[in-house]
Amino acid sequence: MAVLLFDDFETLDVFGPVEVFGRLTDLYTVQFYSLQGGQISNRHGVSLSTVMLESITYPVDIFLVPGGLGTRKEVGYSSLIEKIKVVCDQSKYVLTVCTGSALLARTGLLDHKKATSNKRAFDWVASNGPHVRWDKTARWVVDGKFYTSSGVSAGIDMSLGFLSDRYGIEFARKVANEIEYNWMEDSANDSFKAV
Amino acid sequence: MAVLLFDDFETLDVFGPVEVFGRLTDLYTVQFYSLQGGQISNRHGVSLSTVMLESITYPVDIFLVPGGLGTRKEVGYSSLIEKIKVVCDQSKYVLTVCTGSALLARTGLLDHKKATSNKRAFDWVASNGPHVRWDKTARWVVDGKFYTSSGVSAGIDMSLGFLSDRYGIEFARKVANEIEYNWMEDSANDSFKAV
Repeated sequence: MAVLLFDDFETLDVFGPVEVFGRLTDLYTVQFYSLQGGQISNRHGVSLSTVMLESITYPVDIFLVPGGLGTRKEVGYSSLIEKIKVVCDQSKYVLTVCTGSALLARTGLLDHKKATSNKRAFDWVASNGPHVRWDKTARWVVDGKFYTSSGVSAGIDMSLGFLSDRYGIEFARKVANEIEYNWMEDSANDSFKAV
Repeated sequence: MAVLLFDDFETLDVFGPVEVFGRLTDLYTVQFYSLQGGQISNRHGVSLSTVMLESITYPVDIFLVPGGLGTRKEVGYSSLIEKIKVVCDQSKYVLTVCTGSALLARTGLLDHKKATSNKRAFDWVASNGPHVRWDKTARWVVDGKFYTSSGVSAGIDMSLGFLSDRYGIEFARKVANEIEYNWMEDSANDSFKAV
């Protein structure tokens, strides 16, 4: 799993899915990337070392794009959006959390596809993808190889949903149980609907 | 907030609470520590830079002790347990997640107090604190300045409970809503009871 980082990424957008996939050491290896490489920090006090996105090793099974305040800037950086598009094209699956959907929408790859995002920043996210079929009520949405989730902790529900799609619901439930997480199994059931 | 790390800490034990407290930048600053300082990694592929525990700057408002596979080794390192005790004594509040309770129990500070831990490793954790009044059914437990939580994602519920105790339930609900987390508001209500 390749995880994209940028300044002011949202902590749990990243580490919810990293907990879910990272513990499956027989199936997944987690690696962190950023546009320039090097140390990437957020305002929660978290700083991680990353590899330059250009040096990514293919094939990528899962490409994870988190959200966070940083996305407000990053949607405007065409060099990042172009690189994201290249990696998406060569990844088997693309998962976004929260406002990470805005970055993915900017590539155009979500056009005419179903997607969702953070319910508290929905209009802003949607403005980054006018041709996307935005779903305001889902916890997470699957369309082809693209998994998009609602805000922050919804990334955990989506990751478990992804495992359920690949390995069956009992496998996903086992992982949810291991991390003692009250998994919202129904992707359509979100308590945080956008108004 | 001072966060203790050690090799093979559990990702979400750390970054659930870091998400909750880290976003409150007016109230909390997150810093990572370890016994020796330097880079600390886990098997999920996460690696963080830490400061030596001995160089910790007091006063510490919250000292967070996560769990993880690493605790199985760490409970036997008296030098770490002694340092944890010193920091606990000088911290206003101590929060543990999952098997982090075993590390805290080893200091003796939980003796005759109520506490809980991961429901899947409960007997092992309890064996590290024979004089602790272990609660097998709580999502998290408060006794004086000590907050102990059940497994992994329960650290998020406990952190929100901590905010509720300090700043009121509406404040905690606001934070839960911001991270779109289905908070288990009742600390006694855990779906993952130990058998």
